[in-house]
Order: sequence, then structure tokens, then C-alpha cells
Amino acid sequence: MRDTSTGHSPVTVIGLGLMGRALAEAFLAAGHPTTVWNRSADKADALVARGAVLAASVEDAVTASPLTVVCVSDYEAVHKLLDPVGDGLAGRTVVNLTSGTTTQARETAEWAAGRGADYLDGAIMAIPVGIGTADGLILHSGPRAVFDAHEATLRTLGGDTTYLGEDHGLSALYDTAMLGLMWSLLNGFLHGAALVGTAKVDAAAFAPIARKLIATVSEWTVDYSRQIDRGEYAAEDSTIRTHLGAMEHVLHESEAAGINTELPRFVKALAERAVAAGHAEDGYAAMIGQFRAAG
Amino acid sequence: MRDTSTGHSPVTVIGLGLMGRALAEAFLAAGHPTTVWNRSADKADALVARGAVLAASVEDAVTASPLTVVCVSDYEAVHKLLDPVGDGLAGRTVVNLTSGTTTQARETAEWAAGRGADYLDGAIMAIPVGIGTADGLILHSGPRAVFDAHEATLRTLGGDTTYLGEDHGLSALYDTAMLGLMWSLLNGFLHGAALVGTAKVDAAAFAPIARKLIATVSEWTVDYSRQIDRGEYAAEDSTIRTHLGAMEHVLHESEAAGINTELPRFVKALAERAVAAGHAEDGYAAMIGQFRAAG
Repeated sequence: MRDTSTGHSPVTVIGLGLMGRALAEAFLAAGHPTTVWNRSADKADALVARGAVLAASVEDAVTASPLTVVCVSDYEAVHKLLDPVGDGLAGRTVVNLTSGTTTQARETAEWAAGRGADYLDGAIMAIPVGIGTADGLILHSGPRAVFDAHEATLRTLGGDTTYLGEDHGLSALYDTAMLGLMWSLLNGFLHGAALVGTAKVDAAAFAPIARKLIATVSEWTVDYSRQIDRGEYAAEDSTIRTHLGAMEHVLHESEAAGINTELPRFVKALAERAVAAGHAEDGYAAMIGQFRAAG
Repeated sequence: MRDTSTGHSPVTVIGLGLMGRALAEAFLAAGHPTTVWNRSADKADALVARGAVLAASVEDAVTASPLTVVCVSDYEAVHKLLDPVGDGLAGRTVVNLTSGTTTQARETAEWAAGRGADYLDGAIMAIPVGIGTADGLILHSGPRAVFDAHEATLRTLGGDTTYLGEDHGLSALYDTAMLGLMWSLLNGFLHGAALVGTAKVDAAAFAPIARKLIATVSEWTVDYSRQIDRGEYAAEDSTIRTHLGAMEHVLHESEAAGINTELPRFVKALAERAVAAGHAEDGYAAMIGQFRAAG
């Protein structure tokens, strides 16, 4: 069932937590006839006031629209809600935006196929207030044809709706990859804030300068990616050996300042292993080998 | 000696490695009479061809200009070069852009004071091609009056020339804080690239999406900084408890993918300690306590 040219095809949203409500609101705002369901029906009140239809059951909700978007706490909840629907899913499309693992995503895709439903697994890389905005980043994976059929409707939820590929596990894989990056970036910032804090520098004074560095390093990832894909790590800026020397400085400064030294120790240990593996004269992108290795 | 209104006051650059040459080129391009010195004189050839004067000795170099910028391999080299100059430094300004520690910076400031020289310690947060550009970020610390007197000239080297404060150690402290952030960000990116790589996703496909996340997380540091400075960590997006649940996912995905699990383990261990310290319902900024603690 392809979107109509007006983009107003009926949609269903199951799960009305903070994120689910934001999804339903975005559909309503764009003029989609929107059916909603939640375990606690009162979460639907504001949406119903704005024109949403509260379904009496999950089955009623799913059969009200060609497309159902699910956003609940975990995959266990997804199955608890949708398993009883049975044949009601046949010929319909489920887009599951619940956070989970690649294995859960792939297993749920098989489960959906067994019920004759088209299935996309997605990951929301935005906070609720980002839903429905031009910047809202939502990742989807699964059959290209299913994504294409519903792209216009899905784009209502985030202007930066992105299709990753046929493998249903890709959204969860990107999600976990991005989360690891997020914490690593935040930890780097917090370590830096703690370090300058020892000289009575406010975090608010450090942040603007740190953000400039973050923007610069973000640009480097473009060239680093090309190097990783080629498997050639020419040192265009600095060699890992040079980095290692600076890592000693950072470790000593952290020790001298009396703050946590785990982050600089971790950074240094990885670089030392890269040097031991023969990458002393390579650029930092050669560190990919350390992250690929099991351990 | 204040800059003239034309900004063409004489300058000296000592140390003509890749970075030192970029510094001298920026001064020449802006019309400053530029004297240079390097241990291996041939590094000056291209600069001399563009109008620089090659000094016969370090003393000649220092006494040729009111302002000398030093950019050599380390502080040992700084002292090896400048110690013999003695009285030649009196009444002049030295801006030392050599990488080092806060202790080295503060000790060198005392040393300069003993010779009657004004002294700024700086850190270049740019690669050589960024020198002389509007985005070139160079940090300075030391007496405000010395910075003010030479700001226009120093800004020639980077449009984003930034004064940090009176403490000569601040440039090195920011430098080390930013380096730790840089490696942590790069490691997070490489871990993510390794993870998606297990599903045959090119790093070049991951990078554009990762960069969107980096930009988003960079914005979060603004609010996180305010929370850190206030010491109040209301969970505006997600609690540390919720983060910890997602950290388990990322660890399991990394294990399942057969890649290095050290980064997610490190991330998780820190969050577990924050939870144990009573921060389960706080936002991620409360993790600052883990980085401040010695360990």
C-alpha cells in the first residue's frame, strides 16, 4: 500500500511513552489519520484531543492502518503486544522503532515474515523534541521496497530519515555504534572538564573551545574513513608514535592534577598496542585494527 | 612595545619545523618584517625567498624583533636555545607555542621573568595548513597586558586566537584536556566503524551519520557544562540508569560482533560507579564525579 500523493495515508502508533507520543503528534501535525494504542490508555488523552483515534485493542489498532509504528520499552514488549494479533498483521507493514539488538531485529523480521507482514526495523537517533523536525535522524533497515513504499510517511517523523540497507540488523548495529561513540565523546569532554576544573576553569568556559575541537576532529573522520576502507594509513597529520608521546603528557597532567587517569591510560594502552603491531609511523586511522581485534 | 596600527611590527620565529614554517609564512603574508632561525638553516630557504631574514644566531634572531615566537620540539629545546641568549631577552616578549606540560609552562614563565622578558605560553590547536586562517585556533595564557599588546600580531597566526587567563599553565592544561577529548572521540568513532564493519558497512558510509551524532552530542555539552558548574544534574534527556541499560546492549553487540569490547566495558564500568555513588536518576553530566576522582 503506497502512500497517497497527499501523504495522508492512515497510520497507527503503538506505545505512547514520551517518544511514542512525539511520533503520534508528528503524524497528526502532518495530517495523517492516526490511530493510537497504549497499555495505559490515559497517555492517549492529549493525542485524542488533537484528533487521534484510540483503538480498543492492539488488533484494532494494527488493522486500522496499512502502516503501524511500534515504539515500546523493549522487544519483549513488542512480542507481548503483537504476537496475539496473529493474522491481523498479514498484508500490513510494521515499523519497529523500539531499541534493541541486531539479533532481536533480525528475529523479529523473521517473525513478521511468518505472519505475512512487511517489516522495517528502525532506530531513533533523536530526543523526543527532535521528532518531526528537519534534523530528526531516524535510521531504517529491511527491504528497500518496503522503505520506498512508506518513505514519505516515515519522513514525517524526521527530516533526516535514512535507509541503511536490506539487513534488518543494521539499524540496531548503527544505533549501538553511535551510542558507543556518544559515550566516548562525552567521557572525553568530561575528562577534559575535570582536568581544566583543577585550575578553577568553569566547564562553561571549556565547552566552547572543546566544541571547536570536536567540530575539527569530526571533519578528520571523513579522511580517516577513506583510509580505513582502503586499508592504507598514511600519516597526513601526525603519526601514532607522535600521538603516543602526547598521550604521555596527558597522562602525566591528569596524574599531576589528581584526577581520574583511566581515560588517558586506556587511550595510551591502545596506541602502545598499535605501535607494537607495527603502526608507529601510520596515522591514527590505523588504530582501527585495535578496535577490530577481539578482546 | 605595542603593535603599530598597520600591524606590521617586526617578528621573529624560532624553530622551522612544519608548524614553525607555517607560522613564519603567515607573518610574511600579513606583511610583518620576519626574522627566522632554525638549527638546520636550509629549512629557512623558502621563507628567505619570500622575504624573511635568516638570523646568524638565536641571539641575533631574538634581538631583531620585540616579539619572538618559539615553536620547537619540546621545552628542553626551548631552554637549550634561549638560555644562552641571557640579557638579549630583557624587555622583549617571548610567545612559546611549543607543546608541553603546565609545569613546564609555569617554570618557563619564571625563567623568562628572571631574564626581564615578557612571556606568554601558547598551544596551537590547529594543523599547519590551518595557521593563518580565520578558523586557526591558538590558545594563549599569561599576563593579560602582554597578550593585549601583541594580540593583533598573534591573531595573524590564527583568526581564533584565544586568551585563557593569567596562569601560564592554562594553555598546556587546555591542550591536554582537548587532546584527551580528541582521542576519546576518535576511539569512539573507530569502535563504531569496527562494529558496523562487521556487517560489511564501509567506514565511509558510517562517517556521515556518525558526524551528525557528533554534532548533536557537541550541542549537549553546553547544557552539561552549566549542570557541572552548578553541581546539579537533572536528567533532561536520559538518566544514567537508562544509559547503563543501553551500555549493556552495546557491550553485547560488540561481543556478538567479535570486536574489541574494552571501550564499552570502560564506559559501563564508569557508569556503574556513578550509579553506586547515587547518581542513577541523574543525567549524564553527573559522570563528572567519576572523572574528578583520583584513580
